[in-house]
Amino acid sequence: MQEYAIYAGGEFITTDNQLKVINPYSGENFAYTYKAGKQELDHAIEKALTLQEDLRHMPAHQRYEILRFIADSLKENLEFHAALISKESGKPMRYALGEIKRAIQTFTVAAEESKRLPKEYISIDWTPAGENREGVVKYFPLGLVAGISPFNFPMNLAVHKIAPAIAAGCPIILKPSSLTPLSTLELAKIIDQTSLPKGAVSIIPMDRESGNQLVTDERIKLLSFTGSDTVGWKMKRDAGNKKVVLELGGNAGVVVTESSDIDHAVNRCLAGGFAYSGQVCIHAQRIYVERSIFNEFSQKYIEKVRSLKIGDPLNPDTDISSMIDEKNAQRVEDWIGEAKEAGAEILAGGKRVGTDVEPTVLTNTKDTMKVCSLEVFGPVVALEPFENFENAIAEVNNSDFGLQAGVFTNRINQMNYAFDRLEVGGLIINDVPTFRVDHMPYGGVKNSGFGREGIKYSILDMMEPKIMVKSIL
Amino acid sequence: MQEYAIYAGGEFITTDNQLKVINPYSGENFAYTYKAGKQELDHAIEKALTLQEDLRHMPAHQRYEILRFIADSLKENLEFHAALISKESGKPMRYALGEIKRAIQTFTVAAEESKRLPKEYISIDWTPAGENREGVVKYFPLGLVAGISPFNFPMNLAVHKIAPAIAAGCPIILKPSSLTPLSTLELAKIIDQTSLPKGAVSIIPMDRESGNQLVTDERIKLLSFTGSDTVGWKMKRDAGNKKVVLELGGNAGVVVTESSDIDHAVNRCLAGGFAYSGQVCIHAQRIYVERSIFNEFSQKYIEKVRSLKIGDPLNPDTDISSMIDEKNAQRVEDWIGEAKEAGAEILAGGKRVGTDVEPTVLTNTKDTMKVCSLEVFGPVVALEPFENFENAIAEVNNSDFGLQAGVFTNRINQMNYAFDRLEVGGLIINDVPTFRVDHMPYGGVKNSGFGREGIKYSILDMMEPKIMVKSIL
Amino acid sequence: MQEYAIYAGGEFITTDNQLKVINPYSGENFAYTYKAGKQELDHAIEKALTLQEDLRHMPAHQRYEILRFIADSLKENLEFHAALISKESGKPMRYALGEIKRAIQTFTVAAEESKRLPKEYISIDWTPAGENREGVVKYFPLGLVAGISPFNFPMNLAVHKIAPAIAAGCPIILKPSSLTPLSTLELAKIIDQTSLPKGAVSIIPMDRESGNQLVTDERIKLLSFTGSDTVGWKMKRDAGNKKVVLELGGNAGVVVTESSDIDHAVNRCLAGGFAYSGQVCIHAQRIYVERSIFNEFSQKYIEKVRSLKIGDPLNPDTDISSMIDEKNAQRVEDWIGEAKEAGAEILAGGKRVGTDVEPTVLTNTKDTMKVCSLEVFGPVVALEPFENFENAIAEVNNSDFGLQAGVFTNRINQMNYAFDRLEVGGLIINDVPTFRVDHMPYGGVKNSGFGREGIKYSILDMMEPKIMVKSIL
Amino acid sequence: MQEYAIYAGGEFITTDNQLKVINPYSGENFAYTYKAGKQELDHAIEKALTLQEDLRHMPAHQRYEILRFIADSLKENLEFHAALISKESGKPMRYALGEIKRAIQTFTVAAEESKRLPKEYISIDWTPAGENREGVVKYFPLGLVAGISPFNFPMNLAVHKIAPAIAAGCPIILKPSSLTPLSTLELAKIIDQTSLPKGAVSIIPMDRESGNQLVTDERIKLLSFTGSDTVGWKMKRDAGNKKVVLELGGNAGVVVTESSDIDHAVNRCLAGGFAYSGQVCIHAQRIYVERSIFNEFSQKYIEKVRSLKIGDPLNPDTDISSMIDEKNAQRVEDWIGEAKEAGAEILAGGKRVGTDVEPTVLTNTKDTMKVCSLEVFGPVVALEPFENFENAIAEVNNSDFGLQAGVFTNRINQMNYAFDRLEVGGLIINDVPTFRVDHMPYGGVKNSGFGREGIKYSILDMMEPKIMVKSIL
Repeated sequence: MQEYAIYAGGEFITTDNQLKVINPYSGENFAYTYKAGKQELDHAIEKALTLQEDLRHMPAHQRYEILRFIADSLKENLEFHAALISKESGKPMRYALGEIKRAIQTFTVAAEESKRLPKEYISIDWTPAGENREGVVKYFPLGLVAGISPFNFPMNLAVHKIAPAIAAGCPIILKPSSLTPLSTLELAKIIDQTSLPKGAVSIIPMDRESGNQLVTDERIKLLSFTGSDTVGWKMKRDAGNKKVVLELGGNAGVVVTESSDIDHAVNRCLAGGFAYSGQVCIHAQRIYVERSIFNEFSQKYIEKVRSLKIGDPLNPDTDISSMIDEKNAQRVEDWIGEAKEAGAEILAGGKRVGTDVEPTVLTNTKDTMKVCSLEVFGPVVALEPFENFENAIAEVNNSDFGLQAGVFTNRINQMNYAFDRLEVGGLIINDVPTFRVDHMPYGGVKNSGFGREGIKYSILDMMEPKIMVKSIL
Repeated sequence: MQEYAIYAGGEFITTDNQLKVINPYSGENFAYTYKAGKQELDHAIEKALTLQEDLRHMPAHQRYEILRFIADSLKENLEFHAALISKESGKPMRYALGEIKRAIQTFTVAAEESKRLPKEYISIDWTPAGENREGVVKYFPLGLVAGISPFNFPMNLAVHKIAPAIAAGCPIILKPSSLTPLSTLELAKIIDQTSLPKGAVSIIPMDRESGNQLVTDERIKLLSFTGSDTVGWKMKRDAGNKKVVLELGGNAGVVVTESSDIDHAVNRCLAGGFAYSGQVCIHAQRIYVERSIFNEFSQKYIEKVRSLKIGDPLNPDTDISSMIDEKNAQRVEDWIGEAKEAGAEILAGGKRVGTDVEPTVLTNTKDTMKVCSLEVFGPVVALEPFENFENAIAEVNNSDFGLQAGVFTNRINQMNYAFDRLEVGGLIINDVPTFRVDHMPYGGVKNSGFGREGIKYSILDMMEPKIMVKSIL
Repeated sequence: MQEYAIYAGGEFITTDNQLKVINPYSGENFAYTYKAGKQELDHAIEKALTLQEDLRHMPAHQRYEILRFIADSLKENLEFHAALISKESGKPMRYALGEIKRAIQTFTVAAEESKRLPKEYISIDWTPAGENREGVVKYFPLGLVAGISPFNFPMNLAVHKIAPAIAAGCPIILKPSSLTPLSTLELAKIIDQTSLPKGAVSIIPMDRESGNQLVTDERIKLLSFTGSDTVGWKMKRDAGNKKVVLELGGNAGVVVTESSDIDHAVNRCLAGGFAYSGQVCIHAQRIYVERSIFNEFSQKYIEKVRSLKIGDPLNPDTDISSMIDEKNAQRVEDWIGEAKEAGAEILAGGKRVGTDVEPTVLTNTKDTMKVCSLEVFGPVVALEPFENFENAIAEVNNSDFGLQAGVFTNRINQMNYAFDRLEVGGLIINDVPTFRVDHMPYGGVKNSGFGREGIKYSILDMMEPKIMVKSIL
Repeated sequence: MQEYAIYAGGEFITTDNQLKVINPYSGENFAYTYKAGKQELDHAIEKALTLQEDLRHMPAHQRYEILRFIADSLKENLEFHAALISKESGKPMRYALGEIKRAIQTFTVAAEESKRLPKEYISIDWTPAGENREGVVKYFPLGLVAGISPFNFPMNLAVHKIAPAIAAGCPIILKPSSLTPLSTLELAKIIDQTSLPKGAVSIIPMDRESGNQLVTDERIKLLSFTGSDTVGWKMKRDAGNKKVVLELGGNAGVVVTESSDIDHAVNRCLAGGFAYSGQVCIHAQRIYVERSIFNEFSQKYIEKVRSLKIGDPLNPDTDISSMIDEKNAQRVEDWIGEAKEAGAEILAGGKRVGTDVEPTVLTNTKDTMKVCSLEVFGPVVALEPFENFENAIAEVNNSDFGLQAGVFTNRINQMNYAFDRLEVGGLIINDVPTFRVDHMPYGGVKNSGFGREGIKYSILDMMEPKIMVKSIL
């Protein structure tokens, strides 16, 4: 069984608090690492604070080379890193490979953006008081960042915090999910080979108390959290003087109109609904299909869902594998049961064995059912017909969440209407809400989040503007 | 008969060379002014060159106040200025009022942009050679500008040169059309009341030789010309070391598809085809209508064309009045005749009396006819059906010109296709090519022009970047 | 005695809770208005929420015209509005006139920025997954804004919340200081004359409970507070899910080096130290002068301080008048006493009568004295020599605050060093920290604030980005 | 003797017109290639034109990968490419290695910028006419580009045309200098290995007639020329309808004030004056030193100049080697002679043998001497004292050229004055005018050029904006 040291304050260390890592598919405890306590965390914080001036003065070409080196190193061992994701999270290899490729892209974009940090040069002489003056606004690193990342993208969602921090010149302490700590601990080994000052990045699983300290410690200037909405909003309340960015979940809706390409819509809704068993923040949970094409869509969709390959995530053909743990699988089973009891019809799937939940399609659902109103975070989709486009948009908005939405249409007026009305952070035309590329602004409104990620946007959050006004003559 | 002095080097002066101004509708010579010769031009140039440092150092708030004052003064005498346009150009009052309102807007936008001149603040340390350095890029006034403006928008197309020059801090010498010099000479009276150094703006009708000097004189750093394509391109060849911007004409096309709102399309094509008798650079000259709706469109369109009110431009109800002069009216009559002979059918209009040409709609035209292939600059429209959207787009592109185009559609894929393929400077979805607001980038490709106007874009052309690289530590 | 109704939900209303307004100089209760309670606040909130779609769809030209109208109306009654500030706050007329001029500028800039709301157009095809797609990012109004503004700039600091809200399309409820509510209630009368939907702006003094509701009510999406640091940071903790912007105070430092123009520095430090009796967030509280010029600077400075004209704020010659109330005057007297006792020497002033505190200059201060370490918010300045530039910068940084700083120098390396090291939001070269123009980014680090104001920056805080990704072919 | 085929229309071909390549140091004819005539050029043009739609639709990630591949390939054979530059141009290896590193950087930046092509998203509703509309401005490839590059940076100055063309999606035909064609023909071999459509880049030495066709052929939309000023400005006159960018030379000035670090200034002026024997567009030709430090500067400088190592460019220790050919060496000798005769004093060097000219420092020069007023493009520097900073700046401006300038100072007011007054494209504070990094805007005013290079700026020149206006509701 492999041991992974944790990376605190620039050193690989162990602690008294062992953390077992389980393969959700096989149930095997295949590796272990450690949780940090207050002592290790304080050490990491103190070390990080000593590096701030060095990081601020690091020239762009050095930040760039560090970030490129990490990207190149991940690329060299693409399969290895993907397999590790697959083992600790149960994510099918094809999606795990995709995640590593995205992490490479995230580091690459951060490398490029480290040369393009925000800077403004402005005229000041808009009134007589400002005559003969001009200003430059330079963005300086904000200070120590704390990142907390979830199990479902154990690598890339952590990289969305680490990469911009390096680009911005901020030290960062990242707490990975205790379920999936290994991917980022492998990343730590790569980071340790760069010229980044030791301690600029710490990657440490933590016990609950230390996790809380990330929220409350005033030496930390930004808390960037990706996870569940209840935890996230509580953190905002407890965060004291620091900045907070929250990337939370949702119950994203899709609208498929009769002017769309049905086969394309079916295929995309399949990926949107069942990739990584729906354990994705922008999982396509609610699909609204125009009445005139509902039957055709429904038939084709069910057929495709039934043909999904279920099995070992390490098998390259596997479409869908186990959920992250039995507790979650059970919860999803319960919600399906609740829906059924309240009148929902199961068009496909519906059963659970251990951590495995069948890809499930429901119809005749109501907005009061948990599978509709809450974030299901499992392989469950509600499929419903609609009569009228405006109503369909209203239905998507009928939610406490607002991360992303998808609309399949070839009508300009429908596209405009959706963009104007949908209460979301992102609208994907002719694709599922599940679409994301790593440089686009990404984040939710309503309960789905606070702030935006997407390298350039994250970098901006990690920097503080300072204006210098001076004379020009 | 009213006399207008010309405005050269900061003074209102007269010359030996009188210029009569004729009302195209009544034929009356209602006013006169003067043409400048080499002596007056040289005086204006020399005076302008002495002001460059003052203009460069003028604070933004002063440029702003000057430009706002001009806008406010035009607003105070809106009707007066519109009537003057109407008298010297034959433009119906409703369009003349629109032109003055647009000139007000052009000055207003220039006022605002004078506070937002381009400025860049960039990092330099992308390689070790650039370590510890950063750069600011400031845009300085380019130098003396020469503007040449046409008869069809005697005020606003001149303002598109004068207003950005004031904003940028460049002195300018404007040559208005000899047919319509009065609107800008009234403007000169307003400019003369501001705190702008005398001689920063000269407005002078010129004889041919002096006009040529604007092209060849190396003390002038930018020549901005709006007019016909043959004259414009020759100027570019003769312009020596200076920058040239050309805003030329076209034979703009419109595509009306079956997914569009037909009544809306008919109304817009009416304005696009016949406003100011088609004497507009972005006149909608060629209208392609999808076969399935061609008859309906055609009937409604012809009916509307026939109901246009023809008459005195000073009458507020007049839709269409005289062309600028008989020479041009005759030319248009000849082109209609040529088309008819070669097989075109006249659906409406077709006749000429003096300077008056009826609003004319042709069909069964061929791309070899002058009414199709050249810029008709008169109240003539070719109306043709099409079977296939791709072909309609190709038909619009089948031209030596490329200013703007319009596409009426509610299909996303058609909009995308048109934007990707149309060889134009501007595409207007669900409106005619004739659409323009004064802050948008405006200009043509192919024979239609070189460069873009639209305040911010014109200002950029009138400025020269200078970088200063300095250390940061 | 004049009565002022409050402006809640689009109506001028009164309540049971009368609020007396006192002239701090004369002590006269010259007017009264009302405090809103929960009922009036809830009404204002509910009304505001109904307007959100209308405000979002309001075209730019309408927002622009509304904001211009307000600016123009203030300009027409400049003296009247200034006198009202003077009466309710004790601010000398010359500064009160300056404040109204700045408010005019703030509305003018907001008008212009309402046409330039942030918008991004980005390529998505940086990876194969994004092929043939592109994105637009449009910023939508965030929702209901609550603004809380202080007594020291009763008009312009409120306008820094109201004007960007109108530009952004957000409804706003503003709570002015209960000491100085009248200036904004006069503004309400102007706003009420515009085409802005009734209820889009409410201006209501409040009791404590309603003030707290502004912080906690989840229907409010942004709380923008200008005031004291302790109150501000507590609000951030209590603000729930909403965004918070805090503009707090400081104890700003100035460094005067031997390479600077001493007379210029003396003059600027006079204004920076004593304008409005130092009741300014960016009051120049600590002045560090290079040893070699300390005596000369000190002599000239003391002489000027002693010649400041003290008296009735409505007298146009008055330089300095009463503090806002006796409580604050006493506090300042106490702090001076504490400093003296601990070894500080009084170079000028030091006495208090009623609400009048003499302009006071101290030396031999220590960083532990309240006049140094806290925000004095009164006419008190500490003047100290320094030996070494690096130490002077460190001394300025030796503070819990970090709003702005001033450095008088002609050395490039000192300018660079100061910009790199000073822990502030703004550095003013060759001027006092008190310098501010209304369009520049303004705000503090450390305890001095959270976020930035300055129209464009405030607007950005009041908007939420939404991306639409669509295909391009 | 090695043969190099030329790269025309996507194929490596030979022609009847052999071109010998000579090593300027050894005089050896070590390789040969071919000149293209009209037939080959027409073939390259025609092929290029067929690729335009493919290039326009090439996704960003593909452009990026192509440009990265080229950068990586150059890096792999850094020494090989540097040695080839050294052999064909006589450039010492340390500078040749620097040039290849810069070419790698130029391709890297172009790769990154290919993902950041200009795009604007603007509001249109600034007037009632624009209500409910918005616009996107997308930049499309301009069309076929012709590049003409000089002998002195045979690789990187060609790359400044090729790399942005690939990024922008324009086909390009590059004519390298006939003296140094091999570096880019090696580059052609790398380009040929990428997925870029064959014929998108042609690299072909040409006879005079074909070179002229690049200027006059209307199928070419942009001519980008780097070379001498007389040739360049004539090209602009002959270029017909196409865009022209000219990167010409100069006689750059440096000002060294008493507030500067003398040793640093001496070292930088050594590199600026003699790198690649002064055959550099931004060669520091005229050095003005403040009287009070003139003697010290002069002594230290002369000593350093005398210790420069002269010899074989392939020797890694060589500082200075042969000039490009004997004709130019003779010209430089003549100009030194003319200066001497007219009263100049030779402080160092002054002699010529074959293609070798000694590093030469003159003083007591006059502005009428060729070594001052023209571009010397050889290892000659004029060193003069000045009394007064304003005069020194005027002296630098006393030139027909205006590429870059350097000012060594620690005074803010001198920096401001220089930035305001110097008539140049770039001002380098505390360094020589010879400073350039490849992403900064670079180009001259006056006779030194027309337009700017620097990847992002070149890309902008190679693209044409097209606006699409559409409704939003």
